[in-house]
Amino acid sequence: MIVLGIDPGTATTGYGLVENKAGRNSIIAYGTIDTRANMDMALRLSKINRDLDDLIIKYNPDVVAVEALYYQKNAKTVITVAQSRGVILMTAANRAVEVAEYTPLQVKQSVVGFGRAEKAQVQFMVQKLLNLKDIPKPDDAADALAVAICHLHSYKINSIYKGGY
Amino acid sequence: MIVLGIDPGTATTGYGLVENKAGRNSIIAYGTIDTRANMDMALRLSKINRDLDDLIIKYNPDVVAVEALYYQKNAKTVITVAQSRGVILMTAANRAVEVAEYTPLQVKQSVVGFGRAEKAQVQFMVQKLLNLKDIPKPDDAADALAVAICHLHSYKINSIYKGGY
Repeated sequence: MIVLGIDPGTATTGYGLVENKAGRNSIIAYGTIDTRANMDMALRLSKINRDLDDLIIKYNPDVVAVEALYYQKNAKTVITVAQSRGVILMTAANRAVEVAEYTPLQVKQSVVGFGRAEKAQVQFMVQKLLNLKDIPKPDDAADALAVAICHLHSYKINSIYKGGY
Repeated sequence: MIVLGIDPGTATTGYGLVENKAGRNSIIAYGTIDTRANMDMALRLSKINRDLDDLIIKYNPDVVAVEALYYQKNAKTVITVAQSRGVILMTAANRAVEVAEYTPLQVKQSVVGFGRAEKAQVQFMVQKLLNLKDIPKPDDAADALAVAICHLHSYKINSIYKGGY
């Protein structure tokens, strides 16, 4: 099973692809989709759609796992991130790829073991769990890998009831 | 010039097409793109993308005019409307159609003449300005027509400086 984790944003959308084979997780690719602040918002969203679509075609993930969005103090940021998130969900659905979403709390709980973990702890565990030499950079890519790992952990728990995968 | 006005939503996205020919505005079509609440969000956004794309192909608008989104009390509503809005902006950009956006204040100012107009006043003016027998229904479609009219009014003002169209 291949999971494409996504940390949505407008300037920077992190992505991370993790494969689970025979119970072992390994990293396939990670990085960011970047758009320039001086581009029109509609064109930025169009680029996110195109680049994510290319990733889906190239790696053929079974699931796209996306971080859930909650109200933050900066309402303008919430609106622009939600716009990107809408494009991300739609891009997966247009390719008939399943979508899962996890709250930041669920991601931390799943990757570190407790929901109030610091960013650095999450990144350290991403490195350990994927046997990487270094912490993946930038932060958005590491966060996306954490969402992918969270999905694989949840899937394992679910699979106990479904008879394994 | 043909303007496709959009009032973004998740369950109901209003649309209204207005053509300006030789300074006269006339209605081409209006209605709503509807998605069922029991569908997965990703599939609902995919349907909005598909249906809006069909409208763009069918009517070939010069501009898509979309209502701007501001923070509302219900943060969950803001997030879901912003997700739809992201898909709408992207759909226009993917077809290389220009996008304009107007605040609710600008729309009311432009259609009724003052920014604190009631919904019923906006709808009444949409009916008058487009020479319709009745007020267009539902509200979301009437709102979308108001955004389209707002764009044509703004365009007229701009065109004074650009030498007309």
